[in-house]
Amino acid sequence: MPYFDAASAAPLHPVAREALLASLDEGWADPARLYREGRRGRLLLDAAREAAAEAVGCRPDELVFTPSGTQAVHTGVAGALAGRRRTGRRLLHSAVEHSSVLHAAEAHAAAGGTVAELAVDRTGRVAAGDVAAALTPDTALVALQSANHEVGTEQPVEEAAELCQEAGVPLLVDAAQSLAWGPVPGAWSLLAASAHKWGGPPGVGLLAVRKGTRFAPQGPRDERESGRSAGFENIPAVVAAAAALRALRSGPGTDTEAARLRELVERIRTRLPELVPDVEVVGDPVHRLPHLVTFSCLYVDGETLLHELDRAGFSVSSGSSCTSSTLTPSHVLRAMGVLSEGNVRVSLPYGTAEADVERFLEVLPGVVRSVRERLGVVGAEAPVAAPGSAPREASAAVAEEPAGAAAEEPEGVVVDALGRRCPIPVIELAKTIGQVPVGGTVTVLSDDEAARQDIPAWCGMRDQEYVGERAAERGAAYVVRRRV
Amino acid sequence: MPYFDAASAAPLHPVAREALLASLDEGWADPARLYREGRRGRLLLDAAREAAAEAVGCRPDELVFTPSGTQAVHTGVAGALAGRRRTGRRLLHSAVEHSSVLHAAEAHAAAGGTVAELAVDRTGRVAAGDVAAALTPDTALVALQSANHEVGTEQPVEEAAELCQEAGVPLLVDAAQSLAWGPVPGAWSLLAASAHKWGGPPGVGLLAVRKGTRFAPQGPRDERESGRSAGFENIPAVVAAAAALRALRSGPGTDTEAARLRELVERIRTRLPELVPDVEVVGDPVHRLPHLVTFSCLYVDGETLLHELDRAGFSVSSGSSCTSSTLTPSHVLRAMGVLSEGNVRVSLPYGTAEADVERFLEVLPGVVRSVRERLGVVGAEAPVAAPGSAPREASAAVAEEPAGAAAEEPEGVVVDALGRRCPIPVIELAKTIGQVPVGGTVTVLSDDEAARQDIPAWCGMRDQEYVGERAAERGAAYVVRRRV
Repeated sequence: MPYFDAASAAPLHPVAREALLASLDEGWADPARLYREGRRGRLLLDAAREAAAEAVGCRPDELVFTPSGTQAVHTGVAGALAGRRRTGRRLLHSAVEHSSVLHAAEAHAAAGGTVAELAVDRTGRVAAGDVAAALTPDTALVALQSANHEVGTEQPVEEAAELCQEAGVPLLVDAAQSLAWGPVPGAWSLLAASAHKWGGPPGVGLLAVRKGTRFAPQGPRDERESGRSAGFENIPAVVAAAAALRALRSGPGTDTEAARLRELVERIRTRLPELVPDVEVVGDPVHRLPHLVTFSCLYVDGETLLHELDRAGFSVSSGSSCTSSTLTPSHVLRAMGVLSEGNVRVSLPYGTAEADVERFLEVLPGVVRSVRERLGVVGAEAPVAAPGSAPREASAAVAEEPAGAAAEEPEGVVVDALGRRCPIPVIELAKTIGQVPVGGTVTVLSDDEAARQDIPAWCGMRDQEYVGERAAERGAAYVVRRRV
Repeated sequence: MPYFDAASAAPLHPVAREALLASLDEGWADPARLYREGRRGRLLLDAAREAAAEAVGCRPDELVFTPSGTQAVHTGVAGALAGRRRTGRRLLHSAVEHSSVLHAAEAHAAAGGTVAELAVDRTGRVAAGDVAAALTPDTALVALQSANHEVGTEQPVEEAAELCQEAGVPLLVDAAQSLAWGPVPGAWSLLAASAHKWGGPPGVGLLAVRKGTRFAPQGPRDERESGRSAGFENIPAVVAAAAALRALRSGPGTDTEAARLRELVERIRTRLPELVPDVEVVGDPVHRLPHLVTFSCLYVDGETLLHELDRAGFSVSSGSSCTSSTLTPSHVLRAMGVLSEGNVRVSLPYGTAEADVERFLEVLPGVVRSVRERLGVVGAEAPVAAPGSAPREASAAVAEEPAGAAAEEPEGVVVDALGRRCPIPVIELAKTIGQVPVGGTVTVLSDDEAARQDIPAWCGMRDQEYVGERAAERGAAYVVRRRV
């Protein structure tokens, strides 16, 4: 049963498992104590710190272990901002950072700081020049991930670090997705990562703060981990995490495996558009993680798609709003301006069998087709009216534009998709566009957040003109002009 | 090799080990995901939460797992205070709380809140009536531990909870030391604990917030654990922690073991003063944890004592300043007003062999005697001049009181113990007291924080009169009047 969601959590590396078992018996005592059990724990902890620091590319005394990658980011952002409070209170981060960075930024803004976002291109990549241009004198910290967790795009962290260093501004790199594959090069100031992404156990993050970086830990003080991570040290897990990272670094296996997975991902990127109609593969095709590919499928309900893939034995994740509890599409896809409906992220764990990838490519087209059929969409053609099955029937009303709105869009029709969730508003738009003449408009009324993103994305994919958005009594009115 | 520091960390319970191993394979995936590995993780997490909640005595939806007991306390204190900000910003806690509570209180004070401490008696116990008397209208939260981590004294949490409930003020109970032995009774509002104290693995704390308690989580938000604990869930550790707690609760073994350890501790409490001269057993003899006893030895250097006990095979801890990196004696012993020098905490793990306790009682008297001999103290007698060994020789100068100070203490002598650490100032005092007539004074000049606590404690044990403390050019001058 292939598990294709390594970007969420990787299965435990065998070396980590072995190290964990051994250190459960050796590393349970308090390493701050002077008796033999404590000294033994301290030795294990010190050795783990050395191994992790070597893999990260920093000094052992620059690295602390945290209970998670999320906490490493929260602690790193807050401590670096507080350390430079006198210089300024502006945090600059890319629009596609992990939610842990965004949440740390929110907390900073709530406490009176300012936050600025760096835009990305359609591949999800920040331009290094944009970083330089955005470095104001009051910028206290820049946060830039090494590679994106949803689409795999690598960021120009080395160039960004150099530009930041020239400006005297620290750069925090969230390396959660890339550290398994190699150290982050360059003159970054802070780095955060998460062990369960590289085959370590859950419960371990790491935060490196290079010497010379101003850092003032926030929150209640605690003497553990140089005052940078509160709470009793989790030595068995830390030892296991470091052992897995060392195992990934020490042999030639990682590079070989990266090349192999890169080829498997390339295969998916190339063949998917041939196999599945109306699919958009997103993310940078070259500057990317070796093991991760993301695509979106028009006219597909993400939750049903994931459910059907799960039934077929494939565990993948999605940035579609219809699979998230917040009902908003992924902020990463939004920042990239790409389609979010029917979104699937495939991230291959170390050791993924080629046959499993082949089987995925065999299974996916049929799964997408069946989801579309249930939604009243046939193949790659323009959607047709939904079949009779009542629960799936599109209930959006198609009506002539009411007289009151005539001044704005005289020749248009209005699709009322209020109360309908992704991908229904886009399906209704696709069904209706043929009913207006070329040059005419369709206005979609929708209160689904995904529509704001997916209607313009659909226009791009279908070569129709996205006119814009108007406020409406409920939700918003999205206007599309028929071009073809 | 007997390990007698269960209050720091208990060895992993066999049931926890087994559960951890099983869930490493079953519980590594993201429980927020909808695919089978995620659902499996969610089931494990839900079952662990139910088991832990049952053991704590709350509803599963009132309990979240945190990465440590320390973080449970930090989160609980901050969230409860923020939830009641409109009522007031006063935090009331006992003077003998765990450092995690004190550090949370410091952070609260630094953010503009107010903090008040409840005094304890010589046994380390808070009077429930004092809680009621201290409940001002602006009190937002009361924090009271279920039992003290250094001396084992149980606090009247049930009465305190009732009094707090009547006043409409939430009570947070730090149950880290007692939860292994049973649930905390009464109408507490919040409860924090730490799994590695009950035989669970490190990396797991728990925080219960009963329904109806106002609670506003602080710090960057995160969707995990009802928004109360940031970071990827550590399911294998959580499952192991809950399994150990359930194992402790489900059988009759815990009560039997508690009774057995209680008797062993009673044996230490009774026989120690017969076996070791000038020892003070501290803490409440009745209202106490079953497995913990603490005592202090006059004229003993805590670090050397621990080192010698470690050499003899016994792992214990100490609240003496001479074994702590901060050079200050334990705030618990200070609040109790008892001797801190030569302090030893013995906390017996589940299953401690009676023979090991007997052997400890055999070994300890010789160890204490040898430490005292090296410091120039002989048996239970008044200390004599140090032997010739230069590094250990007491260098404090004994001189007639200089003329300038004559008006204050006309007939006294001054002992200059500046720069000398615990237990030297007390040893010098003991050596000198016989040189002044009854009614005369000895003034000890000391810059060791422990002197402030140990000189009055010595006076109490030796039936001498502690006159008080004066400011001095360096450190302080402690005045003692010879009574016997």
